[in-house]
Amino acid sequence: MTILIENVLVPEGKRVDIEIEENIISAINPKEKDRSDIIIDGSKKAALPGFFNMHTHAAMILLKGYADDYELHEWLTKHIFPMEAKLKPKHVYYGTLLACAEMIHSGITCFNDMYFFEEEIAKAVEKSGLRAVVSKAFISETYNRAEVKKAIKNIEKYARVIPALGPHAIYTTDPETLKDAKALADELNVLIHFHLSETQKELADCLKKYGKRPAQYLAELGFLDEKLINAHCVWLDRGEINLLAKSGAKVVSCPTSNLKLASGIAPLKEIIDSGITTTLGTDGSASNNSLNMFETIKLASILQKYKYNDATALPAKQAFELATINGAKALGLKAGMLKEGFLADLFLVDLGHISMVPRYNLISNIVFAATPGCVDTVICDGEIIMENKQIPWEDEAKEKAIEVANELLG
Amino acid sequence: MTILIENVLVPEGKRVDIEIEENIISAINPKEKDRSDIIIDGSKKAALPGFFNMHTHAAMILLKGYADDYELHEWLTKHIFPMEAKLKPKHVYYGTLLACAEMIHSGITCFNDMYFFEEEIAKAVEKSGLRAVVSKAFISETYNRAEVKKAIKNIEKYARVIPALGPHAIYTTDPETLKDAKALADELNVLIHFHLSETQKELADCLKKYGKRPAQYLAELGFLDEKLINAHCVWLDRGEINLLAKSGAKVVSCPTSNLKLASGIAPLKEIIDSGITTTLGTDGSASNNSLNMFETIKLASILQKYKYNDATALPAKQAFELATINGAKALGLKAGMLKEGFLADLFLVDLGHISMVPRYNLISNIVFAATPGCVDTVICDGEIIMENKQIPWEDEAKEKAIEVANELLG
Repeated sequence: MTILIENVLVPEGKRVDIEIEENIISAINPKEKDRSDIIIDGSKKAALPGFFNMHTHAAMILLKGYADDYELHEWLTKHIFPMEAKLKPKHVYYGTLLACAEMIHSGITCFNDMYFFEEEIAKAVEKSGLRAVVSKAFISETYNRAEVKKAIKNIEKYARVIPALGPHAIYTTDPETLKDAKALADELNVLIHFHLSETQKELADCLKKYGKRPAQYLAELGFLDEKLINAHCVWLDRGEINLLAKSGAKVVSCPTSNLKLASGIAPLKEIIDSGITTTLGTDGSASNNSLNMFETIKLASILQKYKYNDATALPAKQAFELATINGAKALGLKAGMLKEGFLADLFLVDLGHISMVPRYNLISNIVFAATPGCVDTVICDGEIIMENKQIPWEDEAKEKAIEVANELLG
Repeated sequence: MTILIENVLVPEGKRVDIEIEENIISAINPKEKDRSDIIIDGSKKAALPGFFNMHTHAAMILLKGYADDYELHEWLTKHIFPMEAKLKPKHVYYGTLLACAEMIHSGITCFNDMYFFEEEIAKAVEKSGLRAVVSKAFISETYNRAEVKKAIKNIEKYARVIPALGPHAIYTTDPETLKDAKALADELNVLIHFHLSETQKELADCLKKYGKRPAQYLAELGFLDEKLINAHCVWLDRGEINLLAKSGAKVVSCPTSNLKLASGIAPLKEIIDSGITTTLGTDGSASNNSLNMFETIKLASILQKYKYNDATALPAKQAFELATINGAKALGLKAGMLKEGFLADLFLVDLGHISMVPRYNLISNIVFAATPGCVDTVICDGEIIMENKQIPWEDEAKEKAIEVANELLG
């Protein structure tokens, strides 16, 4: 299958023809244009590389708005954990599928997920057409090496799914488990998706229990390397940032969730300046409560301006890169840019949408003004998964998600 | 003209019929239902009171994305002021009209604007169908009592326009002008729209020049009373909050703009707790860069959680009130709630929109999850101004705004 997007605006500010063959951008401005199966008129559109939503618990969309405005500990123990204890595979499948629909509307083509019933997540990813990293999540109590290996084998059968290990966090996973998980990840050559230094309490508890700050503790365990993706990193100090930078480990900032749960503002400017591959995530819908990547990118930028008392901090272009090319780098994918030979993971924006008018600078409008309503078409792995703002399976996903959510409350 | 919205979900969580007669909500659950001219099926919708966007420079939408990521002083003097010097009446008319379209898509039914060529603003408001406070803006150099009086007379001829005086700020308007403007506002019985304590520099300059903090200085000038609407208020201390509370003056917080320009985070929790009528605004599109009221409400809430290290701060219901009933209170309007006898300023949300699924709590979804794409219908002053997401004059407004914006750059 070959797709040609004709005369479309790209981030560099020029208009090009983009040719897609199978799942790859086969040419920018191809000489022969008449061999395409599908031709898309791009004259009123802009093409952007798809966003990487690098930290999610997608199925938690079923708990969106179920418990807001609580203190973190009460939120988790009295509201979220009791509901999660009731989740069955079907909840995770339909929750993840609904989340995929919301993410597609927001220009996301790849997400990095951590939740349980991982095979249900993988099935939903395959159904949605999105690309995703699906972790086998565990804490000390639930870790079983053989089961984790089996889960990874199961997950990797699904289309566009990248398997990973998901040890939850320092405070739920003991050092022996972390060491064994690291060895297993090396053996299987997979990524590790981890929560690091989200709250001040986590930092204080780690200092108390291990006498070290979290990243320092991980470094001494031999846990830090380029395959490690660390969500949050709100409470890193300079020494920890240097440790992460040296190791090649990645960072995912989740600014919306970190504000809503009163966790803090990550020192992203310093993290980026250290050379760490820095990316962005929405986190789960229970603590956000949307999967609106435009909101996350804008907030990441303007919060850094506030934090460093510097309106020039984290400018639009750099914020855009956190959500695109940096996500691809973190996952080791040749994606995140509209270039020949790169994965055909991209979206088209309706330039007539109110958020895009007027337009002096496409990237400024995408970062600071856009809302999901401007996303018209989404292509992932060379396949059109949303066209004219319509996702073929969206209505069914909503109906089923509402049905299984009602059962949860019943 | 009578409108009946049948079987629609309202914030209280129940379904009702809303009857609108002329510009007023004439009944909730009227006994006689067949006398309406227009019947709207509300069975898949929720009705919400329209948002009050309480601080805007609407026409600055023409400068959206024109100059981002600059330090405030450089932003103003090198980028914004030179462009503003080129603005002609037509720019303000079409810019304001385009901004009205964006605001309508975001559920806003009333905005509080401050810009020049005020009669052009009033014309655009009348054309749009929105309600707005339109100020005659001035600084010391441009203040002329007779001209201001004439401008107020001109503005108030337009439909749904509430006239106000707009002395710009302490640092642009000397004490004699402020005192005279206050006397004139009293004489004309109009509101004053003012910028107060937006930046730390403004605070430092006021302390240096007058030996007092901004609100204290205004109090001693006799400037503070219930007719004064203060935008920003980022750098108020406890004593100033008490002064404002005692005077009955109002506060408008603009959280997005305050982050983007690195101004700070207003102590909203303390301002609200003091009893001050507290409201929200987007500010102009040059410093935001959107007029997305959902974003502003969410950000107001989650920033207070962060600022006070308390995830229970400014919960959804209270944040929603800042954007609705508090706006109405600040302007002295019987509006901001869906109650009999209140102004028929409201919007309908498509409950099937992805941001509304699932739905445990309508207000939580509106505050934390909604995007402008969920707004289906907007009614202002009893008139349907958007239906099925369509605004009749939107395409024309975009075309003309692009045309006049291109002239600016030319």
